[in-house]
Amino acid sequence: MAELKKKAAYNVAIAGATGAVGETFLQILEERNFPIAELKLLASKRSVGKELTFKGKTYKVEELTHDCFEGVDIALFSAGGGRSLEYAPSAVKAGAVVIDNSSAYRMDKDVPLVVPEVNPEDAFKHKGIIANPNCTTIIMLVALKPLYDYSKVKSVVVSSYQSTSGAGAQAMEELMNQTKAWAKGEDITVEKFAHQILFNVIPHVDSFTDNGYTKEEMKMFNETRKMLHDDEILVSATCVRVPTLSAHSESVTIETVDPISPEKARELFAKAPGLQLLDDPSNNKYPMPLFVAGGDDCFVGRIRTDISRPNSLAFWVVGDQLRKGAATNAVQIAELLIK
Amino acid sequence: MAELKKKAAYNVAIAGATGAVGETFLQILEERNFPIAELKLLASKRSVGKELTFKGKTYKVEELTHDCFEGVDIALFSAGGGRSLEYAPSAVKAGAVVIDNSSAYRMDKDVPLVVPEVNPEDAFKHKGIIANPNCTTIIMLVALKPLYDYSKVKSVVVSSYQSTSGAGAQAMEELMNQTKAWAKGEDITVEKFAHQILFNVIPHVDSFTDNGYTKEEMKMFNETRKMLHDDEILVSATCVRVPTLSAHSESVTIETVDPISPEKARELFAKAPGLQLLDDPSNNKYPMPLFVAGGDDCFVGRIRTDISRPNSLAFWVVGDQLRKGAATNAVQIAELLIK
Repeated sequence: MAELKKKAAYNVAIAGATGAVGETFLQILEERNFPIAELKLLASKRSVGKELTFKGKTYKVEELTHDCFEGVDIALFSAGGGRSLEYAPSAVKAGAVVIDNSSAYRMDKDVPLVVPEVNPEDAFKHKGIIANPNCTTIIMLVALKPLYDYSKVKSVVVSSYQSTSGAGAQAMEELMNQTKAWAKGEDITVEKFAHQILFNVIPHVDSFTDNGYTKEEMKMFNETRKMLHDDEILVSATCVRVPTLSAHSESVTIETVDPISPEKARELFAKAPGLQLLDDPSNNKYPMPLFVAGGDDCFVGRIRTDISRPNSLAFWVVGDQLRKGAATNAVQIAELLIK
Repeated sequence: MAELKKKAAYNVAIAGATGAVGETFLQILEERNFPIAELKLLASKRSVGKELTFKGKTYKVEELTHDCFEGVDIALFSAGGGRSLEYAPSAVKAGAVVIDNSSAYRMDKDVPLVVPEVNPEDAFKHKGIIANPNCTTIIMLVALKPLYDYSKVKSVVVSSYQSTSGAGAQAMEELMNQTKAWAKGEDITVEKFAHQILFNVIPHVDSFTDNGYTKEEMKMFNETRKMLHDDEILVSATCVRVPTLSAHSESVTIETVDPISPEKARELFAKAPGLQLLDDPSNNKYPMPLFVAGGDDCFVGRIRTDISRPNSLAFWVVGDQLRKGAATNAVQIAELLIK
C-alpha cells in the first residue's frame, strides 16, 4: 500500500490546469484552504505561459511532460484520458499520488474509484493512482448511498439533464454564443455538440456502445457497482444534454430489498454528508441547476414512493458537476489522504 | 350512442381560438383540409373582435357563451378546464359533438378518452363529449401502443423534458424574452413559471398532489390505464420543464410480460401509425425537439434492452405537444367521426 507521507503542506500539481475542471481545482483548493507548499500548473504546450491566479498570486502554466513531477506529492489530473494514461505513471514514478479525473483508470482493478461520502476506505488501497468517478455517477451516488446503507438497492433507472459545461468550457461557451446569436437574429454555429443545444435537448452524451447505451450511461452502471462493491446492482441510465450552463440534474427511481418510505428517505437524506434536502414542492422548493451551481453539496427533492413497482422510491438530485462531480470530489480524496 | 350525422361539410367551432392550441387547431384543420362549411372562432370577452386567418379568409373572434353553438356540428375546446365544464354541456345541448382538450372530462366514465392510433373504437361510444388526452401521455402512448399489442406492458418509468409552449404561448414567450434579456445583460423577468426557465430545468409541471406526484404525472398514470383499458399497468412519471420552445421529449423504460428485443421493437415501431423510427445513434440520429417540432408524427429512437431488469426495454420519444399532443389529435378524432 502506497502512502502519502504526512507533512504540514504538500507540493501539488494540476495537470490540465487551463480546462474547466482545472480552473475549478484552483478555486476549490483555495476555498478549502488545502495545505499547499508549492503549486505547479501543467497543461499542453499551447497553454504554456498562460497565467492563472491562486490565493492572489499569479502562476505561469508549465508544460505537462514526463519529467515535470519531481518533488510533487499530489498530482490532480484532468487533462483527458489519453494524457492521464501517458503521464500519470510518470507522476507515480516520481513519488506523487495521482488523483485522476479522467475515465482512463476508473475500471482498473488496481485503482480505487472513490467518492468520499460513499467509499472513503478504498482511497487508502491505492498503488499511486486514485480515480475520480464520472460526474453524473458521483451526484447520483451521494444521494444513493444513505438509502443503500439502509436497504440494499436492486436496481436504478435514471434519466439525466446534463449541463453544457460537462462537455468543457468551450461547450458552455457554445450555448452562450448560440443564445447571443439567436437574440440578435444571427445564424447559430454548432461545433462542440452534434447538434444545436440552444432550445434543444440531445439524448447523446459521450459515444455509443454496442448495447445501445452510451459510454456515459455505462459508466453509471459500472462505476456504481465498483464503488458499492456490489456486482448485482443494475443501473439503466439515459443521459441527455440540456441547455443549462452548470450543474447536472437526475430523475432517479430505485428498487430496494426492504421498503423505504418517503419519510424514512428524507430522514436518511437529511443526515447524509454532502447532501442537502430540499423537498417542499408545495412551496415550489425542489433542486434546480440554476440555483445548485456554484456549491459543493448535492441537493435532493421530489421524494416519493414510486408507484410503478413495489419497494420503489423516486427522487430528483442535482449537483454541480464541475465541483462535486469533479474538482471538489478529487480535492476531498486528497484531504482523506492527508488527514 | 350519439352519432354525428354525415355531411359533405361540417360547421366547426373552436372555443379558445386565440390560445396556443387554438391557433394550432386552425393550422391543422387547414393542412388536413377538414371539410368545413362554417367556422366559428370563440374566445373570452377580451379577445372578441380579434381577427384570425383560415384558408386565406379573415374571421372575427366571437364571444364564447352558452348560446353560441347553434348549428355547430363539431366544437373543438381548448379554453381551459373551467370553460369546458361551463360551456361544453351547452354545445352538446345545441347538438354539437365536443372534442375537449382540457383535463376536465378525461376521467369521466361517460366520456371516451381517445388517441386515434391507440383506441379509435372508443371515440364512437361518446355521449356528446370526447376528451383529448394530456399531451405528454399522447406522445408516450403513440410509441407504447405497438409494443403493448405485442406484449402486455406491466409498468412504465418515464422522465419528461417538456417544452415551454406546453404551458401556453405566453410561457414560450417568457423563455424567448429571458433569452433576449440575458443576451443584452438585462434583468430576467419571471412570471409564467415558478422560476427562471432560461438555462434551468424545473421538475414541476402542473400542481402537486398528496402522493408527491404532480397532476401532470398522475395524468400519465390514469390516462394510460383508461385508454389501454388496463387497470393493472403502472406508470411512474417525473415531469420536467426544460428551456425548449416546442415538442416534448420522454425517456421511457417499460417492463413487459414477454420480452421484446430492440430489433422486434424497431420492427413494431416502424409500421406503427403516427410514429417515425429515427434510431441511428452512431450517425448522431435520434429524435430531438428542435427538429420534431412542427410535424404531426412522433419520433422514436435510442431503442435498447433496459439492463436494469428482465423483460425491459428503453427508448426515447419526441412529439410536438401542440400538434400531435393536442390539436392534431383532436382533429384526428373529428376525422374518425366523419369517416
